[in-house]
Amino acid sequence: MNLLKKHDPNGPSSWRKAKMERDTQRLLADIYEYSKRLFAEHQRSVLLVLQGMDGSGKDGLIRELFKLVSPAWVNVHSFKAPSVEELTHDFLWRVHDKMPEKGMITVFNRSHYEDILVPSVYGGLAARDIEKRYKQINDFERMAEENGTKIIKVYMNIAPNVQAKKLRERIDTPEKHWKHSDQDWETREHWAEFMEVYEKIFLKCNDVPWHIVPCNRNWTKLYAVSKLVADTLKKMDPQFPPLKSDKFTPNYEKARISY
Amino acid sequence: MNLLKKHDPNGPSSWRKAKMERDTQRLLADIYEYSKRLFAEHQRSVLLVLQGMDGSGKDGLIRELFKLVSPAWVNVHSFKAPSVEELTHDFLWRVHDKMPEKGMITVFNRSHYEDILVPSVYGGLAARDIEKRYKQINDFERMAEENGTKIIKVYMNIAPNVQAKKLRERIDTPEKHWKHSDQDWETREHWAEFMEVYEKIFLKCNDVPWHIVPCNRNWTKLYAVSKLVADTLKKMDPQFPPLKSDKFTPNYEKARISY
Repeated sequence: MNLLKKHDPNGPSSWRKAKMERDTQRLLADIYEYSKRLFAEHQRSVLLVLQGMDGSGKDGLIRELFKLVSPAWVNVHSFKAPSVEELTHDFLWRVHDKMPEKGMITVFNRSHYEDILVPSVYGGLAARDIEKRYKQINDFERMAEENGTKIIKVYMNIAPNVQAKKLRERIDTPEKHWKHSDQDWETREHWAEFMEVYEKIFLKCNDVPWHIVPCNRNWTKLYAVSKLVADTLKKMDPQFPPLKSDKFTPNYEKARISY
Repeated sequence: MNLLKKHDPNGPSSWRKAKMERDTQRLLADIYEYSKRLFAEHQRSVLLVLQGMDGSGKDGLIRELFKLVSPAWVNVHSFKAPSVEELTHDFLWRVHDKMPEKGMITVFNRSHYEDILVPSVYGGLAARDIEKRYKQINDFERMAEENGTKIIKVYMNIAPNVQAKKLRERIDTPEKHWKHSDQDWETREHWAEFMEVYEKIFLKCNDVPWHIVPCNRNWTKLYAVSKLVADTLKKMDPQFPPLKSDKFTPNYEKARISY
């Protein structure tokens, strides 16, 4: 398996920017329409898992993707280093707590996959305990899907030289200083090791499939992920529920109006 | 005091639709810019409390207000009837839990004021215990503001006949059936009692001031609340933080790049 080496972070050569941008606008409108239905139906939910190296554009993507959608229908959760309280529990405890409510779309900006990635590259957990996490994550994701949460897993693929440009912008641009972390440059030194762990994740945690998305350019990234989210929602086909009333029938002129 | 009788839910006669809609676009852009800074600064937060009768347009307002803003910077929380677990705690326990994190804007779609309104109109709590809640809420809101959470409290004023039209649309329009609740029509029978309690709330819980907003029409509602939110954010004047780095100085050409 060498999925990442085979994948072009610039996107397929057949993609034309103008066409994809037009398609994206249509897909964003679909996401609005279907996420409204999902919220109205109030039975199922969607979890969008975003993984990728620093600077692969997760924050910008989240803003663009849900531009038409109400913030009341979308939750975004960024997983940082676990707190002291979180560390007193198993690694999936804090993840479970943030899973979407019925009717909602939740975005994980980083996720439980960090709990495989970080110890695999930096140590701190026995190899056999890391090994167990692959199966535990598969079991957890299957349980969530069986209970009505559709999971979309995205790896945001960016080339190392494009990442460097993005990280450097954070140093050059005063409005982006807050995004800078020396740690991101340190993490970058371990690029090949991270890719090796990702390949293993794609292979072993693929019961809920991974989607590798080209992220060197913003328009390919936004097009690819909007298509994934829109297609998933369309396939779920959430329905507006019928009128629930003991007092009224549809068409109020026939109904008893009490005021 | 009779604030609500003096307030015109159509908005001031001096407001012109075309001009206010232009102004609103500018205000929404301001909300985007300043909420980004608030998030980057990561020191303070904003709580927007929305109260109003059913059909006063809270849901639509939330969607429009944060159209340009990332869902990663805004949380929306709707308080329903308390759960069994919530009822085993004081009434502010679940409210405190949902207060905004540093850097965030949180919207309460209904709030702790329901814990005064509902028992005042329907009973279930001794009058002297309801009385205590006014002070407890003042103390709680002051504590939150002293700790960096700026609170904006909005009463969404709609005329009873306009409300009836909105509620009837939910019966007539299949896509709106899910919003219908017989209970809303029952609540409506207690309109005068609710207004009386609101007047008392405006009088006694005004340490953090209330803003009564004209909600008969969507454009007056959106203009008035965008202005409140934009003005509050501008007054807070959140700042992009300086570069924090042990390795780099602004302008990367002078910096040691490790890759």
